[in-house]
Formats: sequence, structure tokens, C-alpha cells
Amino acid sequence: MQIYADNAATTRMSPEAVAAMLPYLEENFGNPSSLYAAGQRAREALEAAREKVARCIGADPRGIVFTSGGSEADNQALLSAAALGQKAGKRHIVSDAIEHHAVLHTLKKLEKDGFEVTLLPVHENGVVRPAELEAALRDDTCLVSIMYANNEIGTIQPIREIGGICRRRGVPFHTDAVQAVGHLPIDVRADGVTMLSASAHKFHGPKGVGFLYAAPGTPLVNLIEGGAQERGKRAGTENVPGVVAMSVALEQAVGRLPAHAALAALRDRLIAGLAEIPHAALNGDAEKRLPSNVNFCFEGIEGESLLLMLDDLGICASSGSACTSGSLDPSHVLLAIGRVHDVAHGSLRLTLGDDATEQQVDYIVQAVRQVVAQLRSFSPVWRDLTAGKTPFIL
Amino acid sequence: MQIYADNAATTRMSPEAVAAMLPYLEENFGNPSSLYAAGQRAREALEAAREKVARCIGADPRGIVFTSGGSEADNQALLSAAALGQKAGKRHIVSDAIEHHAVLHTLKKLEKDGFEVTLLPVHENGVVRPAELEAALRDDTCLVSIMYANNEIGTIQPIREIGGICRRRGVPFHTDAVQAVGHLPIDVRADGVTMLSASAHKFHGPKGVGFLYAAPGTPLVNLIEGGAQERGKRAGTENVPGVVAMSVALEQAVGRLPAHAALAALRDRLIAGLAEIPHAALNGDAEKRLPSNVNFCFEGIEGESLLLMLDDLGICASSGSACTSGSLDPSHVLLAIGRVHDVAHGSLRLTLGDDATEQQVDYIVQAVRQVVAQLRSFSPVWRDLTAGKTPFIL
Repeated sequence: MQIYADNAATTRMSPEAVAAMLPYLEENFGNPSSLYAAGQRAREALEAAREKVARCIGADPRGIVFTSGGSEADNQALLSAAALGQKAGKRHIVSDAIEHHAVLHTLKKLEKDGFEVTLLPVHENGVVRPAELEAALRDDTCLVSIMYANNEIGTIQPIREIGGICRRRGVPFHTDAVQAVGHLPIDVRADGVTMLSASAHKFHGPKGVGFLYAAPGTPLVNLIEGGAQERGKRAGTENVPGVVAMSVALEQAVGRLPAHAALAALRDRLIAGLAEIPHAALNGDAEKRLPSNVNFCFEGIEGESLLLMLDDLGICASSGSACTSGSLDPSHVLLAIGRVHDVAHGSLRLTLGDDATEQQVDYIVQAVRQVVAQLRSFSPVWRDLTAGKTPFIL
Repeated sequence: MQIYADNAATTRMSPEAVAAMLPYLEENFGNPSSLYAAGQRAREALEAAREKVARCIGADPRGIVFTSGGSEADNQALLSAAALGQKAGKRHIVSDAIEHHAVLHTLKKLEKDGFEVTLLPVHENGVVRPAELEAALRDDTCLVSIMYANNEIGTIQPIREIGGICRRRGVPFHTDAVQAVGHLPIDVRADGVTMLSASAHKFHGPKGVGFLYAAPGTPLVNLIEGGAQERGKRAGTENVPGVVAMSVALEQAVGRLPAHAALAALRDRLIAGLAEIPHAALNGDAEKRLPSNVNFCFEGIEGESLLLMLDDLGICASSGSACTSGSLDPSHVLLAIGRVHDVAHGSLRLTLGDDATEQQVDYIVQAVRQVVAQLRSFSPVWRDLTAGKTPFIL
């Protein structure tokens, strides 16, 4: 059995999105900034895609800036709010400990430039507490940036509550919604979101394209200077094929949201199955969680070996964020929810696709159980644990 | 007859590049940062593309950073050199007046940050003089940025001479080669180039992807912070389909260079034909010129009307850069070569494709002649000129 259970890393493009992309790769290749009819057709396709994308998140189309992906959108959102804050003498930013590195590393850069950053704790369940966020706000806070849903442990943050607080306090609110757009119902107005980042390849669109939503009137600084594309907010010839495909994929994903939500039943079956493995623990909240996300720690094993052996059994999974693979550091997300280094190293993230079945889930449970047992059988750490030389943590 | 003569704005993707892209949109959609085999296959495709691209410009593959396009690459190159200069107390940059806005606007940003920029003149023929460049270098010069070939008037700069000077003087040399890669033979080592920017859609690759070459050892700053992709120099899930397609398109373009150079004969036929129109003048050097580029000014007419009427006759052309269309300002390039405002407004850029024919060229000449005459027949400016009320400039 072949099971792709790493949909948080990237997704298979929908056939409809591929089909929508092709004409703009082939025949309709005009530059949307060109005056002649072929260019204007590309321009119309771009603007139709903008309206489609906007509709999917309850946004004003004028607020959509197409980017090369979620990381670019995150960077631009944070630097824009910081530039605005700077002008007003406000140099304090509130975020949290489990943000994606596109946010955390940009915050580091801003700290070097004199900004002060408060990273809220997320507690054991991986969720930000609105009261703590409100308490962290100061008169000089120029931005709150809290992700919609976490890429590793799938926890969903109380975005609408946070948005309400930010609106009341007059603080711009950015949310990295890369894992949420196309996965959860989103309405930027009701959510009180000032800026939102998204990436097409996380919802069955193409790689290399995403968008930043910024509420009309929000001043943006350019990350990429140059031509006057995207109302002067993002230079570079527009990726018309990518944008068109993204809009189709997003419309499909939003149309499929009820079915996607029902995936939670399979997720819970998977969680229940894996929870039967001794000395294993679910990471993140059991309920405030993306319907597709399962993340476990298994004591006494290495995540990397686990992944390779699962691959041999036909299962594509990950130990956390694909963006940090290759790094030997344990996940900052797992550390933030209180997992100690050793345990954090033995993590497994499984993110189901809409086509997942009970049969697949049961196969995964069986496979993980077998592989964990096998790895433990030759793990010196496990030997010490079972011999009582070191104490179990999980 | 339908003739696409705006290949400097964007090009039709080669069928082979589309074919190379498709499997990575569909079946091989893995995230190259993933450990499992499907991810590793994507990683291998990415690295094979990197080697292919590097080979096409005589570069070390480790120096290739994939970006979302030429503008991003330009921005990153300039900011990287500036950051390095800053550390060494060097805050002077030499560039020229006809650079693309991706360079010029980034230089403006750097000026605000305290850098001093010398923009060299390009004289009537649109070419930088190496002696003037050398004279402009100072002990605190941290970067020379001169484009390989201009996007509007097609002039080719003496890159190898400039590279030699920069190497001798120990100054990093960046070239915006967006119009040159795949159009001219390029060897970054022989050219003495430290950094080079390129964009796939200018050589029959896809939109939304490009690359920055930086000679190994050149420190780069991140434009996009986040994951550890591209050796930590460019965050964001890699656009594998785009990168693979770019590498195929570039290899084809480089293989076709001799045939592309032969396009100069058709270019010259087009220039000769248009030069017969009264009060018309070629913009840019007649010889140091991209084989595909023709750019004329016609006195007494508006470029925009010219383009729309040519479109009606089946010809896609532009008045200059697509990136600044919509702007009412005359081209900074035409102003820099000494065209006055009124004349610069009546410009026409025709950029031929490799499939251009004599028949097409003759059709274009005929069409332009007809349209220019028509536009002049109801132009008050032209009436004043022919009545001797205002003097002719061209």
C-alpha cells in the first residue's frame, strides 16, 4: 500500500488546477502588463483569480497581493507592520513560540533592528491563551502575529478572539494561515485579521505561488522592488499560470471544506490507534486541531529511522516541518509544548489527505506499531528505559 | 498574420519545458526537503536542474540560488553586496542610468539607508564606457551593478571589460542578465561576474522562477527568511516544477545560441525597413545589440495608440518595458540616451522570436509604416511639425 501522509509538507496538485494552469503555460502566455489583447487576456485571468481567491477568505480583492509563496508573504507582512510601527515610534511585537521560521527568523531580524519581541507561550496543548495575549499588548505594540494553525502539531489558535482583541486595541494582526487556508473556513473580516499569508501548494495548488492579504488601507513595504506589478507592492512579472491554478485549487478546497472537516474522524481513529503504543503521546491539542493532523512522540527512538522504515512500508510521513529537515536541532514547536530534547527527536507527523480511508489509517497504525517495536528492539536508550536505569518520560 | 514581437516582455514556453514541468506538477509532487523516496526524487530533480543551469553559464552549481524571478534575484544581489560593504565601511555603489527598476529602485532604497550611488551615463548609443566606470570606482565602492543587456533598447554592455576592471580593483560585480541569459553566450568566470540575475520566462521557461548566481564565497543576505532551503539563502518550499522547466528551457536556449545570433540579420532588415519612415530613429547601438531587439522613436505620435493599432493588425509589440506600462512617465532608458520627453513617448519596441521570418519582418515594416502615417494624419503635434511651427527633432 502506498500512502501519502505528509500533506502538511506539500500536496498533490488537483487535476483541475493543473488543467487550469496549462493554457497559461502554453497558448495564453502574454505578459499581463502588455497593452495588446494577448496581454490583456492574461491581465483578466489574473484579476479573475484575485477575485476568486478573495472570495474564498471573505476578503476585498484589492487586498490580495500575489507572492511566490507563504514565506515571502510572512516576511512582507511583518516588515510592513514593523515599518509602520517604526514611523509611529512603536517597536514592540507580540507573537508566539511555535510560529513557522518564516515568522520567527524575520522577528529575529527585526530584533537586530531594535524591535522588541514578546513570544507568548503556548502551554502543553500548543494553544495561545487570549488573556495572555491581551496582557502582553503595550502602547508601543505595532503588530500581533499568531499563526492560524500550526504546521507541526496542527493546533488551531483562537484567531477570532485574538482578532477581536487586536481590533479593540487598535493593533494590526497578522496570521500565518499557510496551514489553514483551504483547510478551515476563513473569513478575514469576521476573524479581525489585518494581514494573512497563504501558500498554494498546501491546498493542492502549485508550488512557487501564494498570496498576502492586507486589509485595504494597510500600507505595505516591498520585499521585492522593481516594476509596478501588484499595484506597486510586489515587483516581478506576474506568475499568471501559478496564480490561476492557485485560485482554482483554493475554490475547490473551500468547496470541499465540509468533507475535509469530516477527516477528523479518521484523524481520531489514527490517534486512538497510535495511542495504544506504549510510551507514546499525542503532541498538541486533541480537539483544537486541523482535521488532517496527527503528531506523536515515541520514547526511545529516532524520528529519522522511523521515517525511513515507514517509507519502506509505503508511507510518506515526516518528523515535523519539511523546512527544517536536515537540521539536527529538535523541533522548536515540540520544545515549546514541553517535550524534552530526547523525546522531541522521536516525533512523527502524519497529515492525511482528503482521499484517506479507514483501511489506510489502520495500515498506518499497524506499520507504526511494528516499526516502533523494531526500532526499540535495538535502541540502547530503550534498553536503559525498560531496565529502569533511566526514567520514562511519556 | 499573427506575430508575437514582444519576446523581451515574456516568451512562449517551449513545449519541452512544459513537458518537463508536468510530471512535477502531477505525479512527482514531493517536497524536496522530505526524507522519503518521493521527496528525495524531487531533491534529485532540483539538484540536476541546478547543475544544468550552472553549466549553461559556466558556473559552479553551488553558486546557483533559485528565486521567484529576476527582480527577486536583483534585489537579493544588491542588498547582499550592500550588507557586505556596510560591514567593511564601504557605502558607494556604481551602476548606470538605464538599469531595470528592480535595480534602480533597490538602489534608491539603499540611498535612503545612507549609501551613495553613482549612476554612469550611457551616452547616445546606450552603452557604458569602461574607462568612465573605472574612473568612478572609489576605495569605498562595495558594488558595481551593470546590466548585461538592456530590456528596452537591447544594448549589450562591455561586461567582460567591466568584469576585468572590477576583478583587478577587487570590487564585487553584479550583472542583471535577465535579457541576456539564453540570448547571448555567457561565462560567469570569463566575464568576471560575482553575481548574476536571470529569469526563466525570458528564455521560454515558466513565469515565477529565476535564479541568482553568486560566486562561491560571496556572502548573501536573505530577502526571504524562513526555512533552510537553498542552503539557507532563500526560504520557501522549492518550486521544483518551475526550476526543472527552467533548466530544460535554458539548455535549449543555449543550444540554439548560434541560430539566435543569426536573428540579427532579420533584426537589421527590420531596422532598415523602419528607418525609411521619415522622422524615425533607432534607439540604442546598431551593433552592440541583442539579436532580437529593435527599438524606434517616431516623431509626432503616441506610443500607446501605435501599439493598439498594431495589435489590430496582429502584431504584439510594446513601447518599452512591460514592467512600467500603465505609468505615464516616459522611459528612463530613452531619456538617458538623450531622447526628449515628446519623442520618448512615441517609442516602439519589437523583439523577435527565433521563429521570425523575412515575411513577418516585411509585414511588420509595412504595418508600422501604415499605422505611423495614419496616426500622424490626425496628430496636432505632427501638423505643427510639418507646418514648421515647431522644429523636428528626429
